[in-house]
Amino acid sequence: MANSGKPTPAMRHVYRGTFMHSTQQAPLQILEDALLGVDKDGKIAFIGKGGELNKLSQDFGFSPSEVTQLTKDEFFMPGMVDTHIHAPQYSYAGTALDLPLLQWLDTYTFPVESRFRDLEFAKKVYTQVVKRTLRNGTTTACYFATIHTDASLLLGKIANDFGQRALVGKVCMDMNNSVQHYKETTQDSQDETRRFITELLKKKYPLVKPVVTPRFVLSCTGPLLGELGAIARDNNLHIQSHISENAQEVKIAKEMFPESETYTDIYHKFNLLTDKTVMAHGCYLSDDELNLFKETGASLSHCPNSNISLCSGVLNVRNVLKHKVKLGLGTDVAGGYSASMLDAVRRARDTSKFITIQTPEHETLTFEEVFRLATLGGSQALSLDEQTGNFEVGKDFDALRVNVAAPEGPIDISQEEGPKVGSVSPNHVCWFVFFSVTGDDRNIVEVYVAGRKVIPFTEPTAE
Amino acid sequence: MANSGKPTPAMRHVYRGTFMHSTQQAPLQILEDALLGVDKDGKIAFIGKGGELNKLSQDFGFSPSEVTQLTKDEFFMPGMVDTHIHAPQYSYAGTALDLPLLQWLDTYTFPVESRFRDLEFAKKVYTQVVKRTLRNGTTTACYFATIHTDASLLLGKIANDFGQRALVGKVCMDMNNSVQHYKETTQDSQDETRRFITELLKKKYPLVKPVVTPRFVLSCTGPLLGELGAIARDNNLHIQSHISENAQEVKIAKEMFPESETYTDIYHKFNLLTDKTVMAHGCYLSDDELNLFKETGASLSHCPNSNISLCSGVLNVRNVLKHKVKLGLGTDVAGGYSASMLDAVRRARDTSKFITIQTPEHETLTFEEVFRLATLGGSQALSLDEQTGNFEVGKDFDALRVNVAAPEGPIDISQEEGPKVGSVSPNHVCWFVFFSVTGDDRNIVEVYVAGRKVIPFTEPTAE
Ligand SMILES: [Zn+2]
Ligand SMILES: [Zn+2]
Repeated sequence: MANSGKPTPAMRHVYRGTFMHSTQQAPLQILEDALLGVDKDGKIAFIGKGGELNKLSQDFGFSPSEVTQLTKDEFFMPGMVDTHIHAPQYSYAGTALDLPLLQWLDTYTFPVESRFRDLEFAKKVYTQVVKRTLRNGTTTACYFATIHTDASLLLGKIANDFGQRALVGKVCMDMNNSVQHYKETTQDSQDETRRFITELLKKKYPLVKPVVTPRFVLSCTGPLLGELGAIARDNNLHIQSHISENAQEVKIAKEMFPESETYTDIYHKFNLLTDKTVMAHGCYLSDDELNLFKETGASLSHCPNSNISLCSGVLNVRNVLKHKVKLGLGTDVAGGYSASMLDAVRRARDTSKFITIQTPEHETLTFEEVFRLATLGGSQALSLDEQTGNFEVGKDFDALRVNVAAPEGPIDISQEEGPKVGSVSPNHVCWFVFFSVTGDDRNIVEVYVAGRKVIPFTEPTAE
Repeated sequence: MANSGKPTPAMRHVYRGTFMHSTQQAPLQILEDALLGVDKDGKIAFIGKGGELNKLSQDFGFSPSEVTQLTKDEFFMPGMVDTHIHAPQYSYAGTALDLPLLQWLDTYTFPVESRFRDLEFAKKVYTQVVKRTLRNGTTTACYFATIHTDASLLLGKIANDFGQRALVGKVCMDMNNSVQHYKETTQDSQDETRRFITELLKKKYPLVKPVVTPRFVLSCTGPLLGELGAIARDNNLHIQSHISENAQEVKIAKEMFPESETYTDIYHKFNLLTDKTVMAHGCYLSDDELNLFKETGASLSHCPNSNISLCSGVLNVRNVLKHKVKLGLGTDVAGGYSASMLDAVRRARDTSKFITIQTPEHETLTFEEVFRLATLGGSQALSLDEQTGNFEVGKDFDALRVNVAAPEGPIDISQEEGPKVGSVSPNHVCWFVFFSVTGDDRNIVEVYVAGRKVIPFTEPTAE
């Protein structure tokens, strides 16, 4: 493995400096003066201490001169995982937040999504959303597209071209009483889902995979839900949908499927709750329903901005975690107005604080816990935690190089370096909080996905 | 008044393009293709229609070639008014948000504020906060400084140098049981307040004024409160303090002054509720207390980020407005982690939406209403609405030039120009919402205070 004079170095990158990430045991682990190597496949080859440089360089065949040293204002953190985002809705993110969910879908969402039959419009918006989310540190995104197979395939291509890890779902809906032309027949929906999956897999994109995507119970007939459950099972695919977002929606879902005891039960009966399922929202799930999530291994995507913006409800994340249900964060653009996962982090914390204001004995989520949800938690929710989510040897190097003191950035540093407490400088905890609370994309100076530097952008090469 | 060949033009600036602002009647008024002139004193000389260019140029003595045309992605809005911000606390904004109010004061705030005896440290932090808030579009700020008179005077100088309109308060507190050295004697507090006022007024800064600043009931003895009420009355000065932020604080205040029926009554008895008083928070005020605010003309500063971050409480703004109490928004740095008034706008809306989630019949604040609170409402809350708050002839030109499509900015525009509805382009409504919801300082390309361009920065001239 030693690199004695070979033209290709054994390591693609070696970095020395501060690394912050989450583990199953610690919501925030700070590794100071660490040394991390990324191999030619983009995987983390080693993580050691700066003082072990000589030994590591021999073991892994790199020269100390190849090491990139972070500045004292910089750290690496894992790329963030957006477990729920509607790519087409980015075209109106930030507007149209004056109606509750079901009227919002009819008035804004369905008319806009129907425009994605137009591949030119789709290309424009999908390029914007992939670039924008990458710039904001989303290294993995779980996308809803629209019902249009070709535009959905285009989203997959664009994510691949820009180097984002993505699950992409062609949306399935064979019911729509408001915008009549924005739906499919049951047969078309399943046929096109099969075509979407086949064609996307044929591309052999290393980081982009299909996800079976019934929109939600209110948009799908029982036969379609059953067929989608079978397609996912037969092909061992990911599944995504929405559940229990809004009180009115819950009521209608139960009326539509009176034979099911709960909303969760509806999906379960159609084999749509698996250990590769992620369901957005879940604000109104009962403890019994959470237990069913736990049993099946299905996960939840908490989308606090959307829940607030559409006045949908309040998810008690602490209760979800107590039920040991896997949970990540989502932006839910455009129910959520921000495509930035840092916003999701902040709004998750706000939501938890609102619960505390109402119920003082509630144990507020700490920033460290919310950070974990945005990274490791998200990777677990998408069943991608063997590939990404934190800095473990063997995982892909999905990472953000953060500079809290980035020039022209939003953060002012006014306090000088404080004394070390134990082995960790208190400033490094501060840096983490500064960035989580007041940082933005200007502080994210580099983004890596599977070892490839995707920010700053290099124009994608033609296929 | 005509400008026939004189070296000094009659108008300092003339702009043509879209202007958006609030009036007493309309929370959002959009003036398309408007023409606005700013005179040599920095006041708005006229607002007309683009088509009236010839007549206006003759009437006001400017040449059509002097007109600056905004692009289609730009508009002017009034500068924002931060009605409550602690300048020294900017040094730790974004950190230290894990404790409720009273413990937070003891643990973080008092130790940090006590450092502002050091004028070098004060200069560094105060320069940062003035520059940062200006960059974020705060043209008027109502500042708490610390108990240190000289550092408070320095804050006034820095605001003046950078051209920010400001009320500056030397903090008064003759009680502090936790950080023993961070308090004054009752005599010192009133003497230093008098010195502060005298020295600040002596500077004759055109836009910077002193404000009498008892920290809050829990930090002040009755004699001090009475003395400060008298100083404010005798000198016709502004007053600022905190009220009813946190349930525990309310309880202690009532215990300290058992002869007062309510928290509001305490301030009222000491002549601290006037039509030049602004009180931060007010989460737990009763309708009777709101009526007393209305009667005295005192106003409230709603600081939603702080209220959420410290789990203090939830202010029902709709109820305050129904009581016709003047209300502005405040960042309350560092109880609030963000120095940006755009954040205050968003969190005010979130808070209102949370109330709606709890109580669906609640009438959620619209973005237009929150915009008015951040501009005109703030100017009214500070009794500065004769000088600033919107675009009315005779007021100072305090304005933000906003470019929603600023390069490297946070907003992507994906939809082409839509058709006009009535006289207003729907895109201009969209622009406003885009900026309010997803914009940031990168979209604020120029900032004016009293006609002077203060952003982009020009280094302040030495005195
Ligand atoms: Zn969604
Ligand atoms: Zn305050």
